[in-house]
Amino acid sequence: MHEVSRSRFAGTGAAQDEDRVAREEPLEIQVNGASIAVVMRTPGDDLDLVAGFLVTERIVAREAEIASLHHASTGEAERADNVVRAMLADNVAFDVERLRRNLFASSSCGVCGKASLEQALATAPPLGDSTRFRATFFSALPERLREAQRVFDATGGLHGAALFDADGARLCVREDVGRHNAVDKVIGWAARAQRLPLSGCALLVSGRVSFEIVQKALAARVPAIAAVSAPTSLAVELAERAGIALVAFLRGEKMSVYGARERISAD
Amino acid sequence: MHEVSRSRFAGTGAAQDEDRVAREEPLEIQVNGASIAVVMRTPGDDLDLVAGFLVTERIVAREAEIASLHHASTGEAERADNVVRAMLADNVAFDVERLRRNLFASSSCGVCGKASLEQALATAPPLGDSTRFRATFFSALPERLREAQRVFDATGGLHGAALFDADGARLCVREDVGRHNAVDKVIGWAARAQRLPLSGCALLVSGRVSFEIVQKALAARVPAIAAVSAPTSLAVELAERAGIALVAFLRGEKMSVYGARERISAD
Repeated sequence: MHEVSRSRFAGTGAAQDEDRVAREEPLEIQVNGASIAVVMRTPGDDLDLVAGFLVTERIVAREAEIASLHHASTGEAERADNVVRAMLADNVAFDVERLRRNLFASSSCGVCGKASLEQALATAPPLGDSTRFRATFFSALPERLREAQRVFDATGGLHGAALFDADGARLCVREDVGRHNAVDKVIGWAARAQRLPLSGCALLVSGRVSFEIVQKALAARVPAIAAVSAPTSLAVELAERAGIALVAFLRGEKMSVYGARERISAD
Repeated sequence: MHEVSRSRFAGTGAAQDEDRVAREEPLEIQVNGASIAVVMRTPGDDLDLVAGFLVTERIVAREAEIASLHHASTGEAERADNVVRAMLADNVAFDVERLRRNLFASSSCGVCGKASLEQALATAPPLGDSTRFRATFFSALPERLREAQRVFDATGGLHGAALFDADGARLCVREDVGRHNAVDKVIGWAARAQRLPLSGCALLVSGRVSFEIVQKALAARVPAIAAVSAPTSLAVELAERAGIALVAFLRGEKMSVYGARERISAD
């Protein structure tokens, strides 16, 4: 958290005080010595964030493909705490130029939702497992994320992501100013704990569910995503094609399920 | 909007129906014939989105620097409605390789919040105008954004951004699955209407206020940003350095003001 000056207004009065806001700082991600991205993130759990980024961007499939992962040393970089260096194992193919080109190239079959789906499924095939959940499994999850967040987040500015196992045990909670980062931190925690693939688990996110969130869950092989907010069209389509149940508008016993709806039953 | 199949659960019952969700599709942005980005967006107001992207990424400073802006023609691209082509005026310097490199390069003075601030302020100097607002000016804005959104958004999945002039007139409302896109659409509308710089205006956003949102407002020279949600540390710091008032936690008469607090007075 970070203290800043603030003016508070209420009716006609105004007061000056100090307020705590969520920290946001850039993090440079280096792979095999090359800078591949600078992301704006909340400092903390940086190694989880980078491990998760490597998994969800399909640079590695599991923790064993990362030979080393650490912050830059003081002296190597001016703000060493904002630089994380990953070295990949010798047998992992990594072409930084191709990675950079991919970010700008449109798909050969045109720019459209269908091409985005095909591309996502080409690098991570649909889930084949038969994990099923009762709808009531999800009802208590948002409150359990909020419980964990209350401890850390006095700022109201952090997104949260949490991972639950099939028995409802909360395995990991991570926070960040960015929704994507919060999910990458959770998936990176799982990678570093050698828990990938995440068969039988459910991923809860505090924000909306877009295509990219489902793509990250698919990379980590999570069969169910849950959210209090709405999904997008492409998130629903990818969930359907990938075999992922997408539980949205989660409010106590009420919820809407999209995608692999057969995974969720009323009793 | 887009229709998808859904299972609704409430208590022990389950029902199947169709639901409307927010559309999300990729859009490829081409500048002078080169592909510079693919963004996931809600189709609609695509030319505003691209004009705003060009302004907030500092590729152009005003509409006059864009010689032409249109969707690809059918036949030129497989999904022409997902490709927008901008040609810049002859006198505008544009180096696609440098633009791409910038996305990966860390600043020469280290990767940190301070370097991010310096970089933002180097391309867009602080605002010099003396626009002031009464706190009560902001109280009604969220409801006026929601009014406009109720017409379009039956999905609950869209972020909104709106621009108001100094008299409180609502100039423009735009929606998107992405918060950044909604802001780019509003700024692009202003650019295309030849209303830049946006002196005297206020920008309202439906989500949180991060560094990037303040950076976009700075590029468009907006003296005040308002939001119902929280700001981040770097958003507050950039607002302070740039001379932008950042009104957050806006709930009727109550609000917290950060950054250029001198712009806001109680009466």
